Amino acid sequence: MSASQNIRAAIERSSFIRKMFEEGAKRKQQYGAENVFDFSLGNPNLEPPSKLNQILNDLISDPNPGQHAYMPNAGFLETRQAVADYLSADNKATFTPDDIVMTVGAGGGLNVVLKTILDPEDEVIIPKPYFVEYNFYLANHQGVSRPVPTHPDFSFDLDAIEGAITEKTKAVLINSPNNPTGKVYSEEDIRKLAALLTHHSTRRGHPIYLISDEPYRKIVFDGVVVPSIFDAYNESFLVTSFSKDLSIPGERIGYAAVHPDMSDKGQILAGMIFCNRTLGYVNAPALMQRAIVHLLNESVDISLYQKNRDLFCDALWSFGYRFPKPEGAFYLFPRSPIDDDVAFIEALQVENILTVPGSGFLGPGHFRIAYCVAESVIKKALPGFERVIKKY
Amino acid sequence: MSASQNIRAAIERSSFIRKMFEEGAKRKQQYGAENVFDFSLGNPNLEPPSKLNQILNDLISDPNPGQHAYMPNAGFLETRQAVADYLSADNKATFTPDDIVMTVGAGGGLNVVLKTILDPEDEVIIPKPYFVEYNFYLANHQGVSRPVPTHPDFSFDLDAIEGAITEKTKAVLINSPNNPTGKVYSEEDIRKLAALLTHHSTRRGHPIYLISDEPYRKIVFDGVVVPSIFDAYNESFLVTSFSKDLSIPGERIGYAAVHPDMSDKGQILAGMIFCNRTLGYVNAPALMQRAIVHLLNESVDISLYQKNRDLFCDALWSFGYRFPKPEGAFYLFPRSPIDDDVAFIEALQVENILTVPGSGFLGPGHFRIAYCVAESVIKKALPGFERVIKKY
Repeated sequence: MSASQNIRAAIERSSFIRKMFEEGAKRKQQYGAENVFDFSLGNPNLEPPSKLNQILNDLISDPNPGQHAYMPNAGFLETRQAVADYLSADNKATFTPDDIVMTVGAGGGLNVVLKTILDPEDEVIIPKPYFVEYNFYLANHQGVSRPVPTHPDFSFDLDAIEGAITEKTKAVLINSPNNPTGKVYSEEDIRKLAALLTHHSTRRGHPIYLISDEPYRKIVFDGVVVPSIFDAYNESFLVTSFSKDLSIPGERIGYAAVHPDMSDKGQILAGMIFCNRTLGYVNAPALMQRAIVHLLNESVDISLYQKNRDLFCDALWSFGYRFPKPEGAFYLFPRSPIDDDVAFIEALQVENILTVPGSGFLGPGHFRIAYCVAESVIKKALPGFERVIKKY
Repeated sequence: MSASQNIRAAIERSSFIRKMFEEGAKRKQQYGAENVFDFSLGNPNLEPPSKLNQILNDLISDPNPGQHAYMPNAGFLETRQAVADYLSADNKATFTPDDIVMTVGAGGGLNVVLKTILDPEDEVIIPKPYFVEYNFYLANHQGVSRPVPTHPDFSFDLDAIEGAITEKTKAVLINSPNNPTGKVYSEEDIRKLAALLTHHSTRRGHPIYLISDEPYRKIVFDGVVVPSIFDAYNESFLVTSFSKDLSIPGERIGYAAVHPDMSDKGQILAGMIFCNRTLGYVNAPALMQRAIVHLLNESVDISLYQKNRDLFCDALWSFGYRFPKPEGAFYLFPRSPIDDDVAFIEALQVENILTVPGSGFLGPGHFRIAYCVAESVIKKALPGFERVIKKY
């Protein structure tokens, strides 16, 4: 009777993950951190572009008053203008600052969008596997997740999506490049999804929204380009952050953008600004808002992630692991050689290799490897990966 | 059918406030911003202590890697240690880093605490008048506010608090120094409130929590000290931010602390860390966490706010306005000379004076003046205040 029922249940459910992290921490203490190969976290290893510090230094010596004060809840006009210009260059539509709400990372942005649109029991369709925090974000606002299967290459199963649509469907939530699979949905798939949603929105007389979570948008390989959801569908929200491409996840800076031609746009944006305020974020951190004005076209050196991916893919494939080559993000999502993915990641733990079971992403029978680590960590871990698969 | 019902209703309800702000903006455009006297916002006018920039410069040139990366969701250990040491010096209890969760301002901290403890329909007792965002924070987590009256000097009405306790009561939420009244609750009142809550907690076999929102703790006058809730009551949460005392509200940095001897502390803290993560905050902004390690004993020059208070009080009293002298924060909450506080603040608007009606704080028949402004603004506005009260 101290913490709420929901929270006690959530803590109970996540006790396995906690045990897993405790096991990892124990091994680091026992064998030395350098001898434990931690692929469990999406915490980028690359340092932010050097331009970040240069910009921060300039901003800190700016003598104008009010630099750390409250600004409009949607964010500084200058920042929203810069984001609008950036999006206008990257999409067919023309964005204005009013189409942008600066947020406390993508996690903040998703909560803002979901709270704005969800009535209790409203459903959100999400292709599996997916970042499990989405379930908590939905639960925060009494929404219900409707996970749907994808094809073996992790592309949309449009029949499954259509089959999941009910009177309660309020949105489809996608994440491209995907965590945990690294999948980038193709332009054709996005177009077909948009056609499907247009059809059902028209039939019902109100929109089924498309929400695209794109923090890995710039982390793509071999010249892949992430297709624009805005070019395909007017009833779209883009949510993103600078956490991954600038390696600043601790600073909590991102944004949510709405399609300039979204229906009822005024109401939706007023709702988003209200939710940004009343969810307790109030506004995205001021100093980082001012910094990203100058960093929209920057990123860490993506080729280093591609090098990690190639090294890992070639080696794991040669050992017998099976998975499609990811086109973006910094994750691999191989099939576990045995059905019990938890037992398999425990076998990897014995080799001091830390990964996450696919069940944690509604993708049982798989496991996730986060390769946003130094190349040397991958090289040292490879023999362990080989030894473990040989056992099965 | 676009934004959710709740959000549409909230936007509808706040349309009056929007109109008020639009009227203010129109007047600034019409008469020049320098001729409109804006006392409507709690946005501190003083610049942060110069030490802030010095510290930020040092931190930015720190060559250690990972400074902008994810850290534990509760915050950097070094930051939580510094806050724990600060609280240990200020209270009888001894705090450890595990008692502290760094948050996205006090707004973030309150949402984290409320989500952790509230089951749907749980009630939170709040002495009136109060910062109306509390109602939204409660609604976020399906909580219900139980506003209770205070005495004419804004001190607790303990009978009213006791009368409001039901089986559903989960917490009492106080704010001292208070927004909008400037009231600092006395040590005796805090002790009596603690005794009352202890009695009813014992009877029910589970705690009624005390949550104290104290962002104005350092903004006190004439040597007043804000009494420690931790010294009075074990089942206490302190929520605060550096927004007001360091004048950095846009940076969204604060913390929530639990009493080291709170019952079920482990469960409560695990819940708070879970909520900090899943509400989408993830963690308090990294750079500001590192900065406040060195700024816990700093503040803006509080004597400037005291000077504003004294200037305003003496003048308004001499014109016939009636209100108790505030002991802290930077607000006055005078009685409106007429019952209709909205009509009264509209009369002030005609003098280009912007204030907020007390109804917005569940304190009808009053209005709020935020005096975190330049002294010259107060001086220029005084004749207008005098002209308006003379009409009634």
